[in-house]
Amino acid sequence: MRNYKITLQYDGTRYDGWQKQGNTANTIQGKLEQILSRMAGCTVEVHGAGRTDAGVHAEGQVANFHLESQRDCREIQRYLNHYLPEDIEVTAIEEVPKRFHSRLQASGKIYVYRIAVGGAKHVFERRQLWAVEEPLDVEAMRRAAGILEGRHDFKSFCANKRMKKSTVRTLQRISIEELPGELRLVFQGDGFLYHMVRILTGTLLEVGKGVYGPGYMEEILAGCSRELAGPCVPARGLCLRQVYY
Amino acid sequence: MRNYKITLQYDGTRYDGWQKQGNTANTIQGKLEQILSRMAGCTVEVHGAGRTDAGVHAEGQVANFHLESQRDCREIQRYLNHYLPEDIEVTAIEEVPKRFHSRLQASGKIYVYRIAVGGAKHVFERRQLWAVEEPLDVEAMRRAAGILEGRHDFKSFCANKRMKKSTVRTLQRISIEELPGELRLVFQGDGFLYHMVRILTGTLLEVGKGVYGPGYMEEILAGCSRELAGPCVPARGLCLRQVYY
Repeated sequence: MRNYKITLQYDGTRYDGWQKQGNTANTIQGKLEQILSRMAGCTVEVHGAGRTDAGVHAEGQVANFHLESQRDCREIQRYLNHYLPEDIEVTAIEEVPKRFHSRLQASGKIYVYRIAVGGAKHVFERRQLWAVEEPLDVEAMRRAAGILEGRHDFKSFCANKRMKKSTVRTLQRISIEELPGELRLVFQGDGFLYHMVRILTGTLLEVGKGVYGPGYMEEILAGCSRELAGPCVPARGLCLRQVYY
Repeated sequence: MRNYKITLQYDGTRYDGWQKQGNTANTIQGKLEQILSRMAGCTVEVHGAGRTDAGVHAEGQVANFHLESQRDCREIQRYLNHYLPEDIEVTAIEEVPKRFHSRLQASGKIYVYRIAVGGAKHVFERRQLWAVEEPLDVEAMRRAAGILEGRHDFKSFCANKRMKKSTVRTLQRISIEELPGELRLVFQGDGFLYHMVRILTGTLLEVGKGVYGPGYMEEILAGCSRELAGPCVPARGLCLRQVYY
């Protein structure tokens, strides 16, 4: 059995997210397993590094799978890309040590949330941005982001209320880039809780709109309660940019 | 009456092209006229610089219209963008002299044709590229493009067989850019005939595939017959990048 690591891009708009759910075949994992199982003639299980939600995109998702195969990497990549729909692409493939696991061994991930501002529509990229009408105080957002960076209990930013495992994570960086007609929030961390990036974004946007001041971030973190943080923004603006090891 | 010049972006995928046709409202021109007429309370006619075909995109289409209005430019732009669908955007607006006509006074246009090569899927931009499977000899294509540049009778590259006006045009430049997983053909000229860019692209691709040599371009130009040139490639890869005056 060989272990293959693949890097993927996908436009998540049409899908029910990464993870296979019961008999829902309309997931990225489901599509990959279906094609690989047909190729191999037996059930192949694919492990993804990030369980992206329905509608979330990826520029650099990583996954791995074990396979008894004589085919070389390029052949498997070509086979996958041939049968995958046009909104999913395997951009890289390599053989890795047998014990490599894309999720368990990831040391961190970079997520990007793209916001259309100033009325810009981004007609060609509209499915990858979420539009915010209100003017935003970017400097206040940056101050709030600075408070959120670091090692904290992010329980207030976790949508899973029954989460039993630790909700402590390290956010190495939240950078806020101002581009023409766009505000781009980049989150780099060692791990992310359920809906964490979208709740962080929703909270930073509330700061940008002046609903609360940057200093309120300390209260949210200390309070450890989902009710304290801002709303969860839509999936469409979110993209898993990179997984690193 | 004031004369307004607007610059537009649109994803042409869902539309029957720029030009209003009978009772087909599903055109870019139709959408604009509908909104402006409602705003003005009378029929407003919009003149476009380029009559892009069904499925063709624009990053820098230019149009103009006359309007009796007290509204300033920013107001009109906001009104248009508010009522236009999410795949059409007015990116600039200015008041121009009464006699300005976006098409008749254009001194040239730049069109871009994007080709996905090497099996790349471009999942986020897939509606803006056309995929070519075969390997392409880009140097041969560049030699052929060099022959096509300049002032010629482009009758062989015109899909309108009943064209009665002159088919002489000047192609200032055809540049072929090699990007990761993409070949980008840029056409700059003083005017383009019906389907001209798409037939030029189809012909250059035949050269790239070795169907004919670069020197055959001279025969195609001299023969003045549509049958001599290559096929018309699909609209999806084509984009009107710029109109200049």
